[in-house]
Amino acid sequence: MSIVSLDRLTEQLERLPGIGRKSAARLAFHLLYMPDKDADAFVEALKNARETIHECPICCDLTDGEQCPVCGDPRRDRRVICVVEDPRDVLAIERTREYTGLYHVLHGTISPMDGRGPEQLRVKELLRRLSDEGVTEVIMATNPTVEGDYTAMYLSRLLKPLGLKVTRLAYGIPVGGDLEYADEVTLSRSLEGRSEL
Amino acid sequence: MSIVSLDRLTEQLERLPGIGRKSAARLAFHLLYMPDKDADAFVEALKNARETIHECPICCDLTDGEQCPVCGDPRRDRRVICVVEDPRDVLAIERTREYTGLYHVLHGTISPMDGRGPEQLRVKELLRRLSDEGVTEVIMATNPTVEGDYTAMYLSRLLKPLGLKVTRLAYGIPVGGDLEYADEVTLSRSLEGRSEL
Repeated sequence: MSIVSLDRLTEQLERLPGIGRKSAARLAFHLLYMPDKDADAFVEALKNARETIHECPICCDLTDGEQCPVCGDPRRDRRVICVVEDPRDVLAIERTREYTGLYHVLHGTISPMDGRGPEQLRVKELLRRLSDEGVTEVIMATNPTVEGDYTAMYLSRLLKPLGLKVTRLAYGIPVGGDLEYADEVTLSRSLEGRSEL
Repeated sequence: MSIVSLDRLTEQLERLPGIGRKSAARLAFHLLYMPDKDADAFVEALKNARETIHECPICCDLTDGEQCPVCGDPRRDRRVICVVEDPRDVLAIERTREYTGLYHVLHGTISPMDGRGPEQLRVKELLRRLSDEGVTEVIMATNPTVEGDYTAMYLSRLLKPLGLKVTRLAYGIPVGGDLEYADEVTLSRSLEGRSEL
C-alpha cells in the first residue's frame, strides 16, 4: 500500500529534532504538494546556508563573512570573553544589549556519558586567544545543566592558572517567576547569591 | 548580528505546517550541523519523492506506479467507491482491513471561504468514473467538519440523480471514548444513528 519514496522522505523528516511519526507524515505530504517554485526555494535555502556558513576563525561563532560581526566590531571590549555552548546563546545574550565584550562558542559541552571530551569542543581555539590578546576576564555562560556546569568547572581550572578572572553567570529565580514554583536547587542558589539592597 | 542565509532557511522552515518560530530556528541549526552525507540524503529523498510520485489516473490517490495498488488489485470490489479528502485518509481506511472497494481522492474540500470550489477538486474525474464503470454505491468519507460535510452534501446532490446509492460514514462516539467528555453535537448524532441490539 505504501509508496517507497514517500516513506523514505518521511523517515528523513522523522530524524529531525522534535518531529515525531505523525508530524513527519504531515510534513512529507506538505513537501510533496508544494509548488515546484517553493520546493526549489526550500532546497536552495538549505544548500545556500550550508555552503555560506562557517565558523568565525576567532570566536568559532557561525558567520557567513570572513569573521563574525562581533569580532569585527572595533567598539567591542576585547578584554572580556563570554564562553557559550552554542551560537543561539550568543543571539540570546546579544538581545539583552547589555554585554559589550567578545564571545567564544564551544559548540557543545563536555559529556563523558556521551563520549564528548574537551577535544571535541573549541577549547584549543579559546586557549590560543587567551595567550595572544589582552584578555582579563572570561565569563562562563554555559547552560545551568550538569554538562554545562561540568564544562564551566573544567575550563575554569584550566584558565585560572593563567592569572585570568574567571566568572560564572548568576543563578537565581527568573524575573517574573514565582518563588512558590521555583525548584529547591534554584532557590538555594538564589539565596547563596543574594545581594544587598 | 544575524546571518542572511540562516535567516532565509529559518523562514522556509517556518512556512511548514506545525513549525513555529522556535522550532524553525532549532531545525535550521540541526540542518546546518548535519554531516554532508545526511544533508544530501535529505535533499535526495525530497527530490526523489517529488519526481516519482503522481496521481493515479483512475482514483487520483498518490502513487509511484502507473496506477495505485488498490486500482490495480483485481480482488477489489469495483462496484463501491469511497470518496475521501486526502491520500492519508486512504491509508487510515486501509488500516481497518474492512473495506474492499475502491477509492476516490478529492485532494481537498469545497470551501467558499478559502475560495476553493469543486473545480479545484477531482470531481470531474469522479463523474467520469461513474459513467464508465458499474458503480452502484458511493460512500462519502470526507472529514466530519463544516467543509467535509458541505463537500459530501454537494457531491451527493450531484450523484443521486445518476441513480446511485450515496452513503455517509456513521457519526458517533469514538470506541473507547467517554460519554461524559463527548461534545453535544457528536452525542446527538450518535443518538440519531442508534441501532437495535
